[in-house]
Amino acid sequence: MKWLNTPWVNLDPAYKVRAISRQTQLTKPPGSLGVLEDIAIRFANLQQSDQPSAEKIAIAVFAADHGVAIEGVSAFPQEVTSQMVMNFLQGGAAISVLAKQLNASLEIIDVGILSPLSQQEGLVIHRAGAGTANIAEEPAMTHQQLEQALTAGHDAVERAVKKDSDVFIAGEMGIANTTSAAALYCALLGLTPEQATGAGAGLDSTGIKHKTNIVKRIVKTHHGCENTALEWLRCAGGFEIVAMTGAYIRAAQYRLPVLVDGFISSVAALCAVRTQPSVNDSLFFSHVSAEHGHRVVLEALKQKPLLDLGMRLGEGSGAAVAVSLLQSACALHNQMATFEEAAVATKNS
Amino acid sequence: MKWLNTPWVNLDPAYKVRAISRQTQLTKPPGSLGVLEDIAIRFANLQQSDQPSAEKIAIAVFAADHGVAIEGVSAFPQEVTSQMVMNFLQGGAAISVLAKQLNASLEIIDVGILSPLSQQEGLVIHRAGAGTANIAEEPAMTHQQLEQALTAGHDAVERAVKKDSDVFIAGEMGIANTTSAAALYCALLGLTPEQATGAGAGLDSTGIKHKTNIVKRIVKTHHGCENTALEWLRCAGGFEIVAMTGAYIRAAQYRLPVLVDGFISSVAALCAVRTQPSVNDSLFFSHVSAEHGHRVVLEALKQKPLLDLGMRLGEGSGAAVAVSLLQSACALHNQMATFEEAAVATKNS
Repeated sequence: MKWLNTPWVNLDPAYKVRAISRQTQLTKPPGSLGVLEDIAIRFANLQQSDQPSAEKIAIAVFAADHGVAIEGVSAFPQEVTSQMVMNFLQGGAAISVLAKQLNASLEIIDVGILSPLSQQEGLVIHRAGAGTANIAEEPAMTHQQLEQALTAGHDAVERAVKKDSDVFIAGEMGIANTTSAAALYCALLGLTPEQATGAGAGLDSTGIKHKTNIVKRIVKTHHGCENTALEWLRCAGGFEIVAMTGAYIRAAQYRLPVLVDGFISSVAALCAVRTQPSVNDSLFFSHVSAEHGHRVVLEALKQKPLLDLGMRLGEGSGAAVAVSLLQSACALHNQMATFEEAAVATKNS
Repeated sequence: MKWLNTPWVNLDPAYKVRAISRQTQLTKPPGSLGVLEDIAIRFANLQQSDQPSAEKIAIAVFAADHGVAIEGVSAFPQEVTSQMVMNFLQGGAAISVLAKQLNASLEIIDVGILSPLSQQEGLVIHRAGAGTANIAEEPAMTHQQLEQALTAGHDAVERAVKKDSDVFIAGEMGIANTTSAAALYCALLGLTPEQATGAGAGLDSTGIKHKTNIVKRIVKTHHGCENTALEWLRCAGGFEIVAMTGAYIRAAQYRLPVLVDGFISSVAALCAVRTQPSVNDSLFFSHVSAEHGHRVVLEALKQKPLLDLGMRLGEGSGAAVAVSLLQSACALHNQMATFEEAAVATKNS
């Protein structure tokens, strides 16, 4: 996996300097576009452009199954992973609808659902296995599987870059993956299982209590694991979470802006940043999920998300809903008149 | 002004019932789209449709001058009101760019800037006067002017309805109008001048202190005023704030969903609801402004806004940025597959 250490695209600081200056000249009180100004400046810097853009969106949804589902940690049966993959492909899922609304490219990547599907339009087959092992008992995957799943993410970004995408979104589907994410948050951020464990797709309070105990067991099972993000991913992760981690690292190497979705995506972002700290520069956090624990996670990551709409669906849906904010930020930056152009008086001195 | 008491369009509750039911059948954990589910249900009810829509957006920006500008309450000189109107018309302002992005209709309504402009494309001339009187000294306007300004809002909604608009947005421009809004919040919500007064377009702390004193003086000047929203508008309002109030009332009579912008728009919303309480059913609050006081105002109105992006520009810009959330909500509601259609298993029982 030499690519994990690929040298990064260098950034000429002049673009950022010009973007900051332009924001002060546009016909508005300085700072009055709030976060939208920061977004435009960051995009100008990452894209090395005086006309930043968030028009071409690449969405890659990684799907995989989790052996830990056998412990009864999800409100939905395990077969829902593949059923939802079919729903993605047929255009009926939330992310399908949102991708269409954005005119985004959407690909579904099978990184390891239980039973492989036949080849079809929109499906990329890049399997690291037939679901992970039960992480309450043993490591999720082998070193080779870890590498395969990271490469699935790497390759998705390569395809996005070839399509000249302005923004990359990773989504996920995998029954029981909030259990894996919760365990990773405990290991990597020092959260307690109670802080990190939530209802997922819809557990009741008894279910959450049981799931919390499973998260405890997972953390205990792997407590001797080497303390790196990649090794924790191998022990307690899932193929789709590993793939997203690989994708975030690869996107950052290209300085391709990444819009991070919710609870699961954030754990991949955390693992990517732990592996390569500068990944952080490319990440935009789209929303705080209603999944218990996500707010604490974002605080620990010192991230202020763009949206807080009580969403907790995954699939990349929260990120897709936030895309228009990036588009507004770029349009305002590129198209507004300056005080001089519009002959508008500036502030009283 | 008989129209203020026009009977409202009746709503058949069946649409709401069906929308609620549909949200539970779509292929997602129930409730996992958060606020987007509520938006879709409210739209289905208001629009009396099983396929709610937020595609056709009507934006009306009301501009007027304020006599109180003479008290030195704004960081920008008074001529900026007309200069920005020209900027709106020429496409260089934030709201011009956002309207274009949304493919929205945009009209600028002169309700009383100091000097009238010549007739031109995109400009509606509906003047109630040449700026208001100085509200620190005397009532802003006469009863007749109040009626003229309310009618300007009424007429803008009539035009929006004729264009089959799905959503109505009112924006505003008027140097010194945060001073007027702050005084109205003090009078109508019982806020203190310190709670309600902020930097507006960019005052420093000395400027804010001075502005706070002027707000105090305004409230004192009109303390004997009859305690209704319309009479407070006449005494301490501005023509554009009155017009927005009229527009919100008229839109509600048609059950036309209204996306409220920021600090100034919210005071118009407050006055509209005080005048006709059911106006509330049609209002969607787009964002909490960075203008000091707006957060307290939204809490007092028991409204949770969609966005919190540190914006404080006015013109309807925050509302325009939030439109895509309404569009996502409707698209998801209309286009997602049900569990049955997609043959996806439902929750474990």
